Amino acid sequence: MVGVCRRRVSLQKAQKRRAVDWGTLSLKKGVQGANLVVLAVPPGLIVEKGLEAAAVMEKGAVLTDAGSVKGVVVEELDRRLPPRVAFVGGHPIAGSEKRGVEAASADLFAGSVCVVTPSMKSTSEGVRTVTRMWKGVGCSVVKLSPGEHDLLLGEVSHLPHVVAAALTRTVSERGLRYAGAGFGDTTRIASGDSGLWADILIGNRREIGKAAARLLEELKRFQNALARGEREEVAKLLGEARKKRQLFEAKRNKTSKGRS
Amino acid sequence: MVGVCRRRVSLQKAQKRRAVDWGTLSLKKGVQGANLVVLAVPPGLIVEKGLEAAAVMEKGAVLTDAGSVKGVVVEELDRRLPPRVAFVGGHPIAGSEKRGVEAASADLFAGSVCVVTPSMKSTSEGVRTVTRMWKGVGCSVVKLSPGEHDLLLGEVSHLPHVVAAALTRTVSERGLRYAGAGFGDTTRIASGDSGLWADILIGNRREIGKAAARLLEELKRFQNALARGEREEVAKLLGEARKKRQLFEAKRNKTSKGRS
Repeated sequence: MVGVCRRRVSLQKAQKRRAVDWGTLSLKKGVQGANLVVLAVPPGLIVEKGLEAAAVMEKGAVLTDAGSVKGVVVEELDRRLPPRVAFVGGHPIAGSEKRGVEAASADLFAGSVCVVTPSMKSTSEGVRTVTRMWKGVGCSVVKLSPGEHDLLLGEVSHLPHVVAAALTRTVSERGLRYAGAGFGDTTRIASGDSGLWADILIGNRREIGKAAARLLEELKRFQNALARGEREEVAKLLGEARKKRQLFEAKRNKTSKGRS
Repeated sequence: MVGVCRRRVSLQKAQKRRAVDWGTLSLKKGVQGANLVVLAVPPGLIVEKGLEAAAVMEKGAVLTDAGSVKGVVVEELDRRLPPRVAFVGGHPIAGSEKRGVEAASADLFAGSVCVVTPSMKSTSEGVRTVTRMWKGVGCSVVKLSPGEHDLLLGEVSHLPHVVAAALTRTVSERGLRYAGAGFGDTTRIASGDSGLWADILIGNRREIGKAAARLLEELKRFQNALARGEREEVAKLLGEARKKRQLFEAKRNKTSKGRS
């Protein structure tokens, strides 16, 4: 397990915590002889670093990533990677608003879902290798096309991020004193890294736009029912949401404890 | 400490857990000789039960509630209560999506904020009595007018509830499999009691309507920036939200661990 970092201090932390067997600041040295290269860089750097790594990777080696957006990234890598490198997109649905080696956890992936997105440049052996790695750290692996991935994650991950940020922006500073854990939970992800999330949102902006339009419709249903004082309609809208939320809770308890 | 319940089974549970010294199903028996009566009933029943209790309360006794909406409730009780009863509205900002004696916790209020809303029917002694009770269970007590309360709680509690429910309604059932803890936290409060929350939302619909309009504007800013592919604008919107969210976190760590 070789770690390649951009900053020496991160490398030292990773070595101290034994997150890597050895580490280097040189991408070239790091990927030499590797049969699997995992790109764990901010979404805006995946293509650039992927091409850099591929240029020095050996024939038949497999390249994968862990990015939250697949469509545009997979499309560009498929188009630009040299033929000798197999590429298999991946997205482990786990993590938190924290970052760096300090936030590492040995059971981060246990019980969570990892999506792999086989595409033009994927070999079946590459897909097997990547699947084996994610299963090895405790994920259940699901294959989706890059487009399907972006549609579904746009709904359940990217849109909630927009919502948490927009809700936080709406609240007055004075109101914060009266905010309890309801507000705290609803807006938790708004404290995530802004640059990283800007990349994710821009990368999947088409699907997020569609999901956001549906959300606005749902909010307007509440607005209308409230404006008209229709208590039964409000109770019905809330009741249906509650039922779906409980479905999620049941699925989560059964199959996953993903933290992304 | 006398408990008055509507259902015998709740009373038995409360007695078993020693949440009350003794209990009764008769409101009349329960409030006889009481100097302080605390209404802890669903928001839609506060006025009705408050008037019922007041009819059998003694001269100079204090009536308070624990409802999440103050404006309409305080206004109606102030107008309809007999002159011999002092009324002081209250709202402890603590709780969870669970209900019943089973969900009781001795430190539920520790470190949380309780708002009291002195109004026409409040006596200064009544305000002192109610304040003493909430301080006694660990709250810091803040006085606000019923209108101010509804404006601020509309923003930080009621609107997030609408948002969590609307977001849950937006997501497809297929997407739920790929939902992680981000979605889980953002929508947690959508699993709260629908009838109770319908009462709260209807009771404060004017303030919620205003806050919802501001939220729609914020969502549209994201939509526009995403539609135009403006990465820097998206990062700026997220960065500002992040800063405010961290302000909340800092306030929470300093003054409160409210769970509502």
